[in-house]
Amino acid sequence: MMKLYDYYRSTAAYRVRIALNLKGLDYQQIPVNLLTGEDGGAEYRTVNPQGLVPALALDDGVLQQSLAICEYLDETVPEPPLLPGDARQRSRVRALAQMVVSDIHPVNNLRILQYLTRELGVSEEQKQTWYHHWIHEGFRPMEQLLAAQAAKGKFCFGDQVTLADICLVPQVYNARRFALDLTPYPRIVQIEQACLQLEAFNRARPEHQPEMV
Amino acid sequence: MMKLYDYYRSTAAYRVRIALNLKGLDYQQIPVNLLTGEDGGAEYRTVNPQGLVPALALDDGVLQQSLAICEYLDETVPEPPLLPGDARQRSRVRALAQMVVSDIHPVNNLRILQYLTRELGVSEEQKQTWYHHWIHEGFRPMEQLLAAQAAKGKFCFGDQVTLADICLVPQVYNARRFALDLTPYPRIVQIEQACLQLEAFNRARPEHQPEMV
Repeated sequence: MMKLYDYYRSTAAYRVRIALNLKGLDYQQIPVNLLTGEDGGAEYRTVNPQGLVPALALDDGVLQQSLAICEYLDETVPEPPLLPGDARQRSRVRALAQMVVSDIHPVNNLRILQYLTRELGVSEEQKQTWYHHWIHEGFRPMEQLLAAQAAKGKFCFGDQVTLADICLVPQVYNARRFALDLTPYPRIVQIEQACLQLEAFNRARPEHQPEMV
Repeated sequence: MMKLYDYYRSTAAYRVRIALNLKGLDYQQIPVNLLTGEDGGAEYRTVNPQGLVPALALDDGVLQQSLAICEYLDETVPEPPLLPGDARQRSRVRALAQMVVSDIHPVNNLRILQYLTRELGVSEEQKQTWYHHWIHEGFRPMEQLLAAQAAKGKFCFGDQVTLADICLVPQVYNARRFALDLTPYPRIVQIEQACLQLEAFNRARPEHQPEMV
């Protein structure tokens, strides 16, 4: 069985849990506690030299990076597809995913927030402002793109669940956790709520992970 | 003809220039000057609501996000392929690309460095330390992964030029620009040098762009 090196509050790991659930795959979760620094430990770095979660261990090797893992799952287990069939539409979905994965999440993840506090001595208030700033910078154009698209539907791409939803939902969870005002983003919240109705998303939620029990 | 909204020193735009050149595609470059803030201007945001480069305008729409653009180019112009044929190997290449695109570049790009200076009042020295820290955090595991792989060759993935090289070379350029000591990364530098021998990479270099002339 595949092993997912996981942390319940990691939004990157949350993405992969959703993808695995959508594909109907069984996996064993191995918690890597980011807060106690176990992730930076030598032992976990033998699994993933980056020391980050998620990592997905197959029988004969380890996959890294949430999007690369999701694309692998999509290529090896085609149903249900996580991307549209058309190249232009695939690019659109991948771009929405990257807006979260490259432009919002990396700037706000734990290691960055810790550096701001420990190395730069920023206050809690400044850290919160930083955090909110980068989410707004990302969500503002995403809301605009999602609201403007021709094929409106329940999800980021019409009525098909895609990689974009897989990335968006964990980011909204994170925004809520840091008390971001989501009022300016009605379309994003609508999509999040539609996704959470699905068992694959619901089961992947941080509050439903073993570490929480 | 396709129009590339470009900035010569943007490493994300540099990636797309390489991909377009590798695919042998013609494109018109439209410079968007990030330093004078034109990118944040209302006019460019009608092209790309994120206000970031690159964006690739086709006859009937605009593509965003460098990796989503590269994947689009690879799907629509199959030769030469930017990814290996095997799903596991594709995942490996995409993971290397994401290590640059998600874990190094977003934390060190212009808007972040400006925020550190303007909003948090960090010194030039602290900014340099921040910058170097995140490159080292990213290059250390990448060097290890690249040096350890079975199929050694000239590039990140054996002797095939892939998406991983397209992302790595601009990041090394950026590291040099900020005077990072590359001594700990002999494999990365070797790959960069091999890539720059190729006309597609050489023509895409920041110092060969129209803005420099």
